[in-house]
Amino acid sequence: MKEIKSIAALASRFGTLPGVGRKTALRYAYAVIDMSEQDVDAFCAALREVKSSVKLCAECGNFTDDEVCELCKTRHGKQICVVAYPKDVIAIEKTGAFDGKYHVLHGTLSPMNNRTPDDLNIKSLLGRLNGIDEVIIATNPDVEGEATAVYLARLIKPLGVKVTRIAQGISMGSELEYADAVTLSQALGRRTAL
Amino acid sequence: MKEIKSIAALASRFGTLPGVGRKTALRYAYAVIDMSEQDVDAFCAALREVKSSVKLCAECGNFTDDEVCELCKTRHGKQICVVAYPKDVIAIEKTGAFDGKYHVLHGTLSPMNNRTPDDLNIKSLLGRLNGIDEVIIATNPDVEGEATAVYLARLIKPLGVKVTRIAQGISMGSELEYADAVTLSQALGRRTAL
Repeated sequence: MKEIKSIAALASRFGTLPGVGRKTALRYAYAVIDMSEQDVDAFCAALREVKSSVKLCAECGNFTDDEVCELCKTRHGKQICVVAYPKDVIAIEKTGAFDGKYHVLHGTLSPMNNRTPDDLNIKSLLGRLNGIDEVIIATNPDVEGEATAVYLARLIKPLGVKVTRIAQGISMGSELEYADAVTLSQALGRRTAL
Repeated sequence: MKEIKSIAALASRFGTLPGVGRKTALRYAYAVIDMSEQDVDAFCAALREVKSSVKLCAECGNFTDDEVCELCKTRHGKQICVVAYPKDVIAIEKTGAFDGKYHVLHGTLSPMNNRTPDDLNIKSLLGRLNGIDEVIIATNPDVEGEATAVYLARLIKPLGVKVTRIAQGISMGSELEYADAVTLSQALGRRTAL
């Protein structure tokens, strides 16, 4: 069946969003046909507004629509939690378990992908360590995340600041039976006293 | 955490797409931040283009960017397959099992939702029956789809045109164990000789 060009074009745009396959993209495009003219205009305006208003916080590098982000303005703790991406800040904020400041690297070190320390938001982190007691490194527990954590620890520890790493182990509510071998062996190795 | 207004606004737009929840919508909005200016412009252009170029085929009511759709132009069989929505045409075309014409109702009869025959694309169907042998009703096998099928059959049969309904039964590859009772009892009642 010959597809309608404009629908196919819109579907391929939707297809650039994360996790959207051909079928879902087409479904979204069809939904747009059913939208009112005003809704489509508002959709476009929202797209452009995000692109024009969202910038990086001058302090932590997180997304903001101001010079300095809300979290940098309101948090005055002595801890900085370092994450790879803005979405990681959201994940940690949702836990409610951390009330310090953040620092967003916008990536992790990856020799394979030619991402060196100069490509990450690291220099400004060093400039923020005044009055900071602890830097918590909350990059993902994968090869790149680990490499980035080790790199940052080597950089920051000599400055007299404690550097910690979020714990790795068995997820809450998961079953040992289904845990991967690496996670399980690390959980054993890092066992804690009861 | 205070959300950035423009990101929240865009996420709520994405949230109007079918099957997109809060979390997915936010994920899409974040992806837009990472798009280039040109990509966002192209996205907007594609949205508007769909809205402005897609209209309904003057014959069958399916989406088209022309006066008459590609299928109406190229199909010359003596069968018309009646479906509720344009996406149903795509589903049937994918099977390759039908090479006749289509007719899109843009809905099904629903007294509950105040959808009467006048709200559906039915009148133009009656005007298309010249030279047609069979009208296949391919609405969904739910209450509204069945009601619509029965209504159309009563309308069309007196005009001397055969009216058929797509078969209902156990899906190919499914397991009896998991079939719902209605489907299973219908599959039994409509059993065919081997």
